[in-house]
Amino acid sequence: MYPDPTKVTRVTSIGGGPIGGGWAAHFLARGYDVTIYLHDETETPAFNAILDTAWKSLTDLGLAPGASKDRLRVSTNLNDAVKGAEFIQESAPENLEMKQTLYAQLGQIVPSNVIIGSSTSGLTMTDIQAKCDTPGRCVIGHPFNPPYLLPLVEIVGGKATDAAAVAWAGEFYEIAGKAPLIMKKEIPGFVATRLQEALWREALHMVANGEATPADIDTALINGPAPRMAIQGQCMAFHVACGAGGMATNLDQFGPALKLPWTRLEAPELTKELRDRMVDGCNEIAGSRGFEDMAAKRDEQIVAVLRAIRDTA
Amino acid sequence: MYPDPTKVTRVTSIGGGPIGGGWAAHFLARGYDVTIYLHDETETPAFNAILDTAWKSLTDLGLAPGASKDRLRVSTNLNDAVKGAEFIQESAPENLEMKQTLYAQLGQIVPSNVIIGSSTSGLTMTDIQAKCDTPGRCVIGHPFNPPYLLPLVEIVGGKATDAAAVAWAGEFYEIAGKAPLIMKKEIPGFVATRLQEALWREALHMVANGEATPADIDTALINGPAPRMAIQGQCMAFHVACGAGGMATNLDQFGPALKLPWTRLEAPELTKELRDRMVDGCNEIAGSRGFEDMAAKRDEQIVAVLRAIRDTA
Repeated sequence: MYPDPTKVTRVTSIGGGPIGGGWAAHFLARGYDVTIYLHDETETPAFNAILDTAWKSLTDLGLAPGASKDRLRVSTNLNDAVKGAEFIQESAPENLEMKQTLYAQLGQIVPSNVIIGSSTSGLTMTDIQAKCDTPGRCVIGHPFNPPYLLPLVEIVGGKATDAAAVAWAGEFYEIAGKAPLIMKKEIPGFVATRLQEALWREALHMVANGEATPADIDTALINGPAPRMAIQGQCMAFHVACGAGGMATNLDQFGPALKLPWTRLEAPELTKELRDRMVDGCNEIAGSRGFEDMAAKRDEQIVAVLRAIRDTA
Repeated sequence: MYPDPTKVTRVTSIGGGPIGGGWAAHFLARGYDVTIYLHDETETPAFNAILDTAWKSLTDLGLAPGASKDRLRVSTNLNDAVKGAEFIQESAPENLEMKQTLYAQLGQIVPSNVIIGSSTSGLTMTDIQAKCDTPGRCVIGHPFNPPYLLPLVEIVGGKATDAAAVAWAGEFYEIAGKAPLIMKKEIPGFVATRLQEALWREALHMVANGEATPADIDTALINGPAPRMAIQGQCMAFHVACGAGGMATNLDQFGPALKLPWTRLEAPELTKELRDRMVDGCNEIAGSRGFEDMAAKRDEQIVAVLRAIRDTA
């Protein structure tokens, strides 16, 4: 029913702000023909500035063969903007009523086998698609800012979304050079924002209590957990730091610390089931790699990251 | 009373595990004469392995003039190990009774003008120094793993610590190539671990609820917030992402979202005082830099980090 994702060549990005503009830049850099829909022509200068800024970084990272800013078309007419699109990325303002109206309209003017991905960070697809006649092809495709640089796209459908549309979006975003994360459930904040938000709220608690300043928070992150997290995430950071015992050693040794007030967030009960999910999950990621190899690779990559930061400081 | 921190040349690292061994490697790489205290000689092979591993990365990052592994002395006699030390880094096991006994002993055999920094991550200096006769010079100097690579050292005294000893430690660690963070208050988990722990506990909640797997957690971090956090921390990431309005725009726009269940952690009340602390703190970090410059620098550095990760993958 849906087109072959490897054959998609024409993409429309709805919205000319930092997210919609960033998406347009990303798709252009990956070699697609891109139409950007702007609400009106007064948005053109801001959009052009976003594109120019993004293009510099995208060029540094390496453009796909044939990629060109000349393959951009700008339209302020929605009917015209979506014409011929084989995929639509929607980055309209974060207003439920506005999105519902937009999806009702898109549902009628866009063929039902064209997937529409929404950049929303705070709304659910179940709500967004409520007034759309063809909700099956509507998915969340949530990027991280700046969307032309950070690879993550979190993908999840609403209650009325076809499972096949979610799977298609995962394939397509990967082909388009993104790092797709297909979510298990429709939860507020998705995965990455929930993790970031827990950290952020603890930061606000510390500032509110006079325990740290914003500069302290950033100094701590930049020089401590963040470079390692950029390489390994957090599960594998703990898995590899615990040597041959891995995540099992971490949970068995630090499990009791989950009861300590090391943050304002209460941890879940460390049941055997949770322990096994964590341990099995890390072992799956590790595959056949031993911890010495993973620790050596971690160090090599942290050195590279620290040098990259230092050399561009 | 305390020696000139710029004149320190001899350091003792107590403990031959990953932390104590990592500290020894770091100080050697910065050109110090280092004595490592091992509990007994059976620890030598593991310590040597840690040193060799660390030395490779430290060499890649650049050694200080005169730095050499030949400037290491190994001792299994505590009296002998601390002799002549101008600074002591203690990384004994995380056991309060053991640390209290050790500090009682160090209090007698180490001249009282020699600062002792503890690597503890879970204990407070108020507790550790309880049985020490000369507690004024005892501070926390908490590194991040791996301690030979990540620059952060969180510094805080206990109730009986001299303020001058805390200040001295801040100066000394900076001279020794670390990124010191002098804490405002003695709080469990210090700053970086509290931030990481909030994120970690939310991750455990998601895995417990079947909302994400460990691989999902790590995919989300590696491709989303972490590379940006490694460059900007989190306060400045939001400050710069909000354009000219900075943190004020972020809090005014996303303040209501603090009430949303985007994580299991409840946020503090966003009082005017907290808002001002966040906004003023970010403006101080920014100094005279405009947001366009900071966003351009962010992009340049994210590109460098992504390339560094890719080139070493």
